[in-house]
Amino acid sequence: MRKHRTSSLRLFSVCRSFLVGGLASLSPILIVHAQPTPTISAAIGEGSSAKPGALSEKQTERANGLIDKALKSDLAYEILESLTTEIGPRLAGSEGEARAREWGVRTFKSLGFKNSRIETFELPYWSRVKETASISAPFPQALAITALGNSVATPEGGLEGEVVRFASLADLKDAPLSGLEGKIVFVDEPMTRTMDGSGYGPAVAKRSGAANEAGRRGAIAALIRSVGTDSRRMPHTGSMRYQQGIVRVPTAALSNPDADQLARAIKLASAMEAGPVRVAMNIQVMTRESTVSGNVVAEIPGKTDEIIVIGGHLDSWDLGTGAVDDGAGIAITAAAAKLIHDLPGRPRRTIRIIMWGAEEVGLYGARAYAAQHKDELHRHVMASESDFGAGNIWQVQSRVGPEDIAAFKTIVRPIARLGASWRGNNANGGPDVTPLRTAGVPVFSLR
Amino acid sequence: MRKHRTSSLRLFSVCRSFLVGGLASLSPILIVHAQPTPTISAAIGEGSSAKPGALSEKQTERANGLIDKALKSDLAYEILESLTTEIGPRLAGSEGEARAREWGVRTFKSLGFKNSRIETFELPYWSRVKETASISAPFPQALAITALGNSVATPEGGLEGEVVRFASLADLKDAPLSGLEGKIVFVDEPMTRTMDGSGYGPAVAKRSGAANEAGRRGAIAALIRSVGTDSRRMPHTGSMRYQQGIVRVPTAALSNPDADQLARAIKLASAMEAGPVRVAMNIQVMTRESTVSGNVVAEIPGKTDEIIVIGGHLDSWDLGTGAVDDGAGIAITAAAAKLIHDLPGRPRRTIRIIMWGAEEVGLYGARAYAAQHKDELHRHVMASESDFGAGNIWQVQSRVGPEDIAAFKTIVRPIARLGASWRGNNANGGPDVTPLRTAGVPVFSLR
Repeated sequence: MRKHRTSSLRLFSVCRSFLVGGLASLSPILIVHAQPTPTISAAIGEGSSAKPGALSEKQTERANGLIDKALKSDLAYEILESLTTEIGPRLAGSEGEARAREWGVRTFKSLGFKNSRIETFELPYWSRVKETASISAPFPQALAITALGNSVATPEGGLEGEVVRFASLADLKDAPLSGLEGKIVFVDEPMTRTMDGSGYGPAVAKRSGAANEAGRRGAIAALIRSVGTDSRRMPHTGSMRYQQGIVRVPTAALSNPDADQLARAIKLASAMEAGPVRVAMNIQVMTRESTVSGNVVAEIPGKTDEIIVIGGHLDSWDLGTGAVDDGAGIAITAAAAKLIHDLPGRPRRTIRIIMWGAEEVGLYGARAYAAQHKDELHRHVMASESDFGAGNIWQVQSRVGPEDIAAFKTIVRPIARLGASWRGNNANGGPDVTPLRTAGVPVFSLR
Repeated sequence: MRKHRTSSLRLFSVCRSFLVGGLASLSPILIVHAQPTPTISAAIGEGSSAKPGALSEKQTERANGLIDKALKSDLAYEILESLTTEIGPRLAGSEGEARAREWGVRTFKSLGFKNSRIETFELPYWSRVKETASISAPFPQALAITALGNSVATPEGGLEGEVVRFASLADLKDAPLSGLEGKIVFVDEPMTRTMDGSGYGPAVAKRSGAANEAGRRGAIAALIRSVGTDSRRMPHTGSMRYQQGIVRVPTAALSNPDADQLARAIKLASAMEAGPVRVAMNIQVMTRESTVSGNVVAEIPGKTDEIIVIGGHLDSWDLGTGAVDDGAGIAITAAAAKLIHDLPGRPRRTIRIIMWGAEEVGLYGARAYAAQHKDELHRHVMASESDFGAGNIWQVQSRVGPEDIAAFKTIVRPIARLGASWRGNNANGGPDVTPLRTAGVPVFSLR
């Protein structure tokens, strides 16, 4: 296992260090804010007799050197092991996340990065206290649930009601506005498993949608089939948002096998004419109006005032240690930056590594950064967050100005030896760079 | 998923119906109680011109007919779906197990079997009430544990202590009898993953061993790495037994990733000189001196007074619905028996199908059956329990008298078309037929 994890983390890190190293070193800036600027094209093959659109010998050599070094490094694994063991779960605004920020500063300093600091911000706090559920009739047995982030509590002692199943969120939205009063809505929509994670977005829609549609119809609670395709009895949490003006009903996810079980019970009870399936659930939560979180920021200073942002998010959900989501992103980007840091000489551009705070609960760190750095956003020439797991890389996507696409494709050519290639100019760049992307900063994503 | 499960259950069921059908129909009895008896060899090729050691045309036709029918049947899946949905968890002595017995009688009757009945017995009752644990220092975070069956409780409010890790039960046994006073013993021994399940026995040894060796040394609790190779955060329960004359300490299993985490924490704390790793744990349990369980028994009456026993165990642990352990065994054997039941004419021998009670907590049903039926054990010519999962069959093992091995191998030849073959005469027959096997009844096992 160790071997496997290490090599997966290496491949992400290899790609990132190579790519960021290339972007940081090549001279002209990428297109920013739709202003007319020089393109990166001019930098390709700079200072050599290479044909247009090709990397110079020196550039190729540097790229291959970074790849070779990264393939031998266990640093990403070591960073991840340290974060998940010393700190563990890091719920946004929690004591765990606060300890993680201190760990982040220590880690950045130990890697030799400059200007390590915590940029704090405030956000509301939510945490789970208790969550139990069971089928109470006609086939009594326990169900494995987890409250969705931001869910209100049930009455103390819980609630109980008849369950009405909907095969999809769309079916629930199509349901009449009456007929569900006093009932528990169950949205059984499964997530589609895809290599590029494209099944996630549609699956997430039901996370908020179910409770809001249930509340709108007078239901007393909403259950969803877990987002995710895991077959174990581990429900998947994640945040939801209540819409304004709708009664807020408690909402939770059932693990996939428990969703199967509830669906089977409903079908069987109907076939046996055994009466409606009823569920009892008890969710207790703790909330505070305001707590502190923060982004942990460090830099490899460049020769110009241009900035490239990479990183992952430091906060995690509370049900595990956040190794994949997003300890891996933290580890990959810090290890990649370390390789660039160790190259002879300064990069042309400053590389800013960010451990984002409070991503899971609504991109609070992302918005705080965009606000706190709004006066220098025009100097951000590229941004990317690593928040897509720790498996092998098979593609890289860009979102740059049309005149830079060819140059970007040229830059990424050396990672072909790792089985990865450029695939399209529609990168989203990762959740925490969303405010940068919408402000016009070019982004890239590794897949 | 449905498709896959169905076909796995089918293959088990195919093999069992074919095999039991063959054994029930062939005339002479297998060797029993080491008495000199006719062997099954004489029945092979009976009433035909087949060469010695081969099945007759009629026997081959009947075997292939059973296999063909079984391959088309979804009955095993339907029985399993009904048991796990209507009843769910069936902890020995619980209300769930009692409901399961009623379900068992209903199911046997609906399949057309005769003499459906519950044969009750008593046993002590144990159930979990609460179980939590966390690393309290130096890296505070929660651990996923489950109490081992029969564990005593911690003091109300829990206990806390320094953890001492042992790589194996053997290492703990080798440790001096002093030096662990007031500490928590952690036996980190992993289970080896093997196709034939041979890693299970050695892994189970630590389930009782850890607490007894810990108690002997003045430790206050014992934790083990879960038996099993699952990588999810689901600890594996199972029963343990305290030895006489040793202080009884509470004991629980950590899921595999949580065992990894505790081991990493111990290593890291040592490397950082951060002080000892301490764990807090709280286990509360409920016990009763005596409760009722029972075996559910039914028959396909034969022409002679000889009996073949097949079945699975009805009780399960409480953390899931007991679909694999051992709902699958119940489903496979009931569906197999139904195929034989539907053949024209009576089998020569009575096939007795048993849903055993209270297997998980110490073979109470097995011992009760052997005692209740001791006067007819000499008429039991073969026994087998299906308690090895629901995957495809790849081998069948026998434990018959030496003079019957050749005949047994001949009988099982038709299942070669399913990719399975005879493999050795050392079958254990399954846990609940242990008292029968030790009394001299021949057994077989499907793997």
